[in-house]
Amino acid sequence: MINMERIFKELDELKFELPSWAFSDAGTRFAVFHEEGAARNVFERIEDAALVHRLTGCCPSVALHIPWDKVENWEELREFAEEKGLKIGAINPNLFQDPDYKYGSLTNPSEKIRKKAIAHVMECVDIAEKTGSKVISLWLADGTDYPGQDDFRSRKKRLEESLRYIYENMPADMYLLIEYKFFEPAFYHTDIPDWGMSYLLSEKLGERALVLVDLGHHPQGTNIEYIVATLLSEKKLGGFHLNNRKYADDDLTIASINPYEVFLIFKEIVFAKRDPELSDSAKKVVLMFDQAHITKPKILAMIQSVLIAQELFTKALLIDENRLREAQKNYDVVEAEEILLDAFRTDVRPILREYRRQKGLPEDPLRVFREEDYMEKRRRERR
Amino acid sequence: MINMERIFKELDELKFELPSWAFSDAGTRFAVFHEEGAARNVFERIEDAALVHRLTGCCPSVALHIPWDKVENWEELREFAEEKGLKIGAINPNLFQDPDYKYGSLTNPSEKIRKKAIAHVMECVDIAEKTGSKVISLWLADGTDYPGQDDFRSRKKRLEESLRYIYENMPADMYLLIEYKFFEPAFYHTDIPDWGMSYLLSEKLGERALVLVDLGHHPQGTNIEYIVATLLSEKKLGGFHLNNRKYADDDLTIASINPYEVFLIFKEIVFAKRDPELSDSAKKVVLMFDQAHITKPKILAMIQSVLIAQELFTKALLIDENRLREAQKNYDVVEAEEILLDAFRTDVRPILREYRRQKGLPEDPLRVFREEDYMEKRRRERR
Amino acid sequence: MINMERIFKELDELKFELPSWAFSDAGTRFAVFHEEGAARNVFERIEDAALVHRLTGCCPSVALHIPWDKVENWEELREFAEEKGLKIGAINPNLFQDPDYKYGSLTNPSEKIRKKAIAHVMECVDIAEKTGSKVISLWLADGTDYPGQDDFRSRKKRLEESLRYIYENMPADMYLLIEYKFFEPAFYHTDIPDWGMSYLLSEKLGERALVLVDLGHHPQGTNIEYIVATLLSEKKLGGFHLNNRKYADDDLTIASINPYEVFLIFKEIVFAKRDPELSDSAKKVVLMFDQAHITKPKILAMIQSVLIAQELFTKALLIDENRLREAQKNYDVVEAEEILLDAFRTDVRPILREYRRQKGLPEDPLRVFREEDYMEKRRRERR
Amino acid sequence: MINMERIFKELDELKFELPSWAFSDAGTRFAVFHEEGAARNVFERIEDAALVHRLTGCCPSVALHIPWDKVENWEELREFAEEKGLKIGAINPNLFQDPDYKYGSLTNPSEKIRKKAIAHVMECVDIAEKTGSKVISLWLADGTDYPGQDDFRSRKKRLEESLRYIYENMPADMYLLIEYKFFEPAFYHTDIPDWGMSYLLSEKLGERALVLVDLGHHPQGTNIEYIVATLLSEKKLGGFHLNNRKYADDDLTIASINPYEVFLIFKEIVFAKRDPELSDSAKKVVLMFDQAHITKPKILAMIQSVLIAQELFTKALLIDENRLREAQKNYDVVEAEEILLDAFRTDVRPILREYRRQKGLPEDPLRVFREEDYMEKRRRERR
Repeated sequence: MINMERIFKELDELKFELPSWAFSDAGTRFAVFHEEGAARNVFERIEDAALVHRLTGCCPSVALHIPWDKVENWEELREFAEEKGLKIGAINPNLFQDPDYKYGSLTNPSEKIRKKAIAHVMECVDIAEKTGSKVISLWLADGTDYPGQDDFRSRKKRLEESLRYIYENMPADMYLLIEYKFFEPAFYHTDIPDWGMSYLLSEKLGERALVLVDLGHHPQGTNIEYIVATLLSEKKLGGFHLNNRKYADDDLTIASINPYEVFLIFKEIVFAKRDPELSDSAKKVVLMFDQAHITKPKILAMIQSVLIAQELFTKALLIDENRLREAQKNYDVVEAEEILLDAFRTDVRPILREYRRQKGLPEDPLRVFREEDYMEKRRRERR
Repeated sequence: MINMERIFKELDELKFELPSWAFSDAGTRFAVFHEEGAARNVFERIEDAALVHRLTGCCPSVALHIPWDKVENWEELREFAEEKGLKIGAINPNLFQDPDYKYGSLTNPSEKIRKKAIAHVMECVDIAEKTGSKVISLWLADGTDYPGQDDFRSRKKRLEESLRYIYENMPADMYLLIEYKFFEPAFYHTDIPDWGMSYLLSEKLGERALVLVDLGHHPQGTNIEYIVATLLSEKKLGGFHLNNRKYADDDLTIASINPYEVFLIFKEIVFAKRDPELSDSAKKVVLMFDQAHITKPKILAMIQSVLIAQELFTKALLIDENRLREAQKNYDVVEAEEILLDAFRTDVRPILREYRRQKGLPEDPLRVFREEDYMEKRRRERR
Repeated sequence: MINMERIFKELDELKFELPSWAFSDAGTRFAVFHEEGAARNVFERIEDAALVHRLTGCCPSVALHIPWDKVENWEELREFAEEKGLKIGAINPNLFQDPDYKYGSLTNPSEKIRKKAIAHVMECVDIAEKTGSKVISLWLADGTDYPGQDDFRSRKKRLEESLRYIYENMPADMYLLIEYKFFEPAFYHTDIPDWGMSYLLSEKLGERALVLVDLGHHPQGTNIEYIVATLLSEKKLGGFHLNNRKYADDDLTIASINPYEVFLIFKEIVFAKRDPELSDSAKKVVLMFDQAHITKPKILAMIQSVLIAQELFTKALLIDENRLREAQKNYDVVEAEEILLDAFRTDVRPILREYRRQKGLPEDPLRVFREEDYMEKRRRERR
Repeated sequence: MINMERIFKELDELKFELPSWAFSDAGTRFAVFHEEGAARNVFERIEDAALVHRLTGCCPSVALHIPWDKVENWEELREFAEEKGLKIGAINPNLFQDPDYKYGSLTNPSEKIRKKAIAHVMECVDIAEKTGSKVISLWLADGTDYPGQDDFRSRKKRLEESLRYIYENMPADMYLLIEYKFFEPAFYHTDIPDWGMSYLLSEKLGERALVLVDLGHHPQGTNIEYIVATLLSEKKLGGFHLNNRKYADDDLTIASINPYEVFLIFKEIVFAKRDPELSDSAKKVVLMFDQAHITKPKILAMIQSVLIAQELFTKALLIDENRLREAQKNYDVVEAEEILLDAFRTDVRPILREYRRQKGLPEDPLRVFREEDYMEKRRRERR
């Protein structure tokens, strides 16, 4: 019934990108919690990412955050990563922690601060070139806290100019992903609050400016899969920050609140990849994780996240697309829904165990991680 | 201190459009409540709109909803309205009450139903021409209730094709306003759920396709004034449906939940009208009401709404824009906010009474409406 | 591994209550859509409920809505239902469609209207006695649309007095379930907006006043399973209105938006039933459906809903409670979550097919419904 | 028309409590921003609070946060405050920053950690006695991040036991305020998420356990004034944390997003104070600020906040209660709303300037603060 060969082929193409920052201490605005053995620098973060890749087999790249991951010698870092089996993925500029950015970075009323922010992004472009990355992933914390604090249209104009400069000075094969976020850390308005603004900006810039969708950056109730389908149809979807939320930007483990939603999002990618017109652009969509684990041990949580994402993607692969389109044509809403549910209900754990076995991977990566007691090892190594 | 001449001049330009449908019985999904004396047909609805205009002096046009307001002889209706001092404003097609549209109108999988929907819009274009209106105001109820019910990208393609046909077949001086709504009556996805989708569609169509912002059609927490500023800066804001909400699309009296928010929205219009680059397009923005009054008598509620809107617009006119820009430049957030608040705190009722006196209008339209006992008159006339 | 005997025993105890009103035409506030063959009166509604029970075997009671289901001879109706294999479940008073209730029913400033509302509830108590029901299920649409419309504390006092009268005049073995709803049809305030108010009121009334949880009546983000656990711990949970929502009170098919959430809610019931201290009260919790199907055929949708609910309940039965408590004790968050997920991931369709086979029920009720073409039959019978 | 004598008398009774922590550096979860001259210890924080009181005349007490404000000699601190014209207000235990509390404090599965948390609260009780405070203000960050992480009912039982111990061991004239918060820092469930749970817990404890309402701790759309009215009617409202929010717990300046809402909340207090049955308990309600200013200078922002709160309270005092009740009785919704709006529209700045003049206070405290250049003074003193 299930075409294992096809599934396995599509699983071969399924790659996730790990965020270096997920392996170091994190916190809420109320406290930062230290985890014994957590990575303390970029080399340890890459080590941890490599371990996740070794156990799961589907995480061949690691995203960096600058300046947190800054090193003197980028070639050395690149080699270090490659020795561990990893490529350097998206480079993420930090435009939010410097006091200069309190009132904005690329949108700041001060030309001097805008130039500083642009220079930092260009530094990241440089790092991307040196590390072999083709992606700059841009999240702006820019916004205001109070009505009147700044002029909306002036800020938009400054933002467009700043982005224009960056885009025009990137190498011709590099992509600029523009992330949006509904709110936080600014609490009155955010300069890029929704997909509409990311789309408007990237549309004006050009083909290599794309939208990045963080699953936790939407107002409550938002139909994210519809945004994903829209951006796919416009060839404007650049990538994801995978995580989950119940309330705001909670940065929880993917699918921990609503696994069905993730399945429906993945369905849009699976279908677009099969559409000849969209296939190329859909295949370039980067699946990055962006989670913050406080109550879960970091590496363990990341392995769990990858397995859950892989599982839900596999379920999306099982959807009988032909039958679905037939039901849709007939307005048979129950039947259409049951076709989705039949895929979702299927227990794909045996499929994935078999897949991993064939690839020489541990069938149950979580158990191996625990049995080998990697956490204790890290604690010992990183005292 | 306050430049009365300037204020009065700007008040002269401030016009609201009344919706014919607000003068007839309305309901929730749980009950429709009958108001004795409420208008029973388009002529009575125009009569009621004319009364509101007579008492307030700032509502010279009335929007129609087809087929609710359909008549045999459109020229006659136009003359009837003009005799009462009103022009015909936006023509609103109805693409939601016909059973054929249960699974979509302009997006329906069936070509036959799409053609029917397009034909209805073209009929409205025709009515607009006959009644001297230059605006088609399009709200689609299209969407799905369940995952899988239809294919998102196919619907978007159909929607674009339908709109393209309509846009290309409208007279060259007619505007198409595309409204968005977060949800309802569809409860899984809505085909035009946010400003981003309205913008994307109107951007593709051309200059005379614009976005319509209904104040009640956003997710909770949305910064509407920022959307307004964004659309103004792109010359893509076509108009408003003015109302208020606490929860969803509650269609309450404007500003009844948050008057400050309306003041901040109006501020964006006031400022854009003063910006030489945007002035022309900002002046064309149509301020329509779209409210449903159940617990308030309809005409009384409409007069109240107009007065409240006029009052908040007047407050926005009082903002000291130069001082504000100075404070913004200095990052003086408290000062900037206090400049807005100084305008908002000002009791503009004396200004407006004086303005009305000079125009030969009743100084207190609500009181006159009550004293003349128009409600009793309507009840007697419309038994 | 899975203890089938235990599962089957717990499945035997799992009963759902069907709402009579779900089998007749429904609508949104924009349109009411007619379904050919939909039930036109209470007898046909009971027939349809009986069909759902015959095919699924777990829906032995039907809730009535007064006056929609009002008949002359209640004994006759009761017998009719019993012949069809059904008992009469909760009696639902209607305190929202009469124009008198525009400004409130049990909370109305007018004593006369409050007395009328109380009398209607007492009529329902009488109907409950005559039909053998032990449950009055009370939903109030009471609230206000505008600040100042009425005095909150006066309304609360009136509400408490009205409920006190009803409670004290019910038979000693009858339960009063008090439903809450965040908003709609009132859009400024609702008199019973949340579980806190239902709890406060029922706590004051006495032991047979309990809270009813409608899954669609909460603010976005609400952790419903936590409310359920809280009410269970206080022996104050009376029952559910099962459905799902993405936005507001969407009344969609249960679990159609987030099946995992329903699983987590059912887990609380499963665990409470096993707790000796709470077992008795947890077993009395009534699982009623309250859905409105517009885009799905009504009977088909109801069968689908029952099967989905049964499936998710079965998954909740599979949770390894002992291992879970052990993981919780060890703060092993990943392990605890995986224990839940292991149950959720399990494909329980084979278990349920076997269960149905043993009970002499169709293994696939949806298929049987389609194969027997009950919809066509209904259409023919109900022309 | 306006009875100045009565207004001034009620203004004399209007007192706000300042939070010590608002005068030191604050941040979001993305960055902590340093303000030059910001208070560095409890003595400087009290100095800043005293300055706010000196300029506004209505902030005679300051709330402390333990251990942030911990000193060796509490009598000395009390005297220091009294010399500056301040009393010590609510004592706030900190049960969220210690790593031990990662999985809960009063609800923690570990008895040892629960005892530690209880001991800390009892230490705060002791500090309250030593500093002459009568109020413990308890906010728990307790909750879980993932389904299954802990058992809801067990946590509730532990919470009730912990609170019972604290309540029974407090002096007989001390109050325990129990705060609720919808979410954050826990992102799956919060142990005290809403007024219902605070009410349930305080109701079980006894008369001196009361609910604390933080204006930013509710789901979107919540009608806070209705919760306030409900708690007032039950004599269960202990106090407020005043602030505002647009999205989540944004901790912005009070009324900066919706001043009308604050006016409506204050109206409930004003009316309850006039109700003979509730007057005593309503007068005890503590009006504390709890804001975090990042983009505004801290002392300046606090003065602004106090003035805005005082202004909105004054507007609430102007509501014509008799006319309002008459309109409510007549179901005259427009009239009732206009009565509220008439008070809200009134520019009360002249009244407040006159009031301050009579009290020997600066008429415009914000201007005096700027003219005296207190910020520069602080910067020089606190290098």
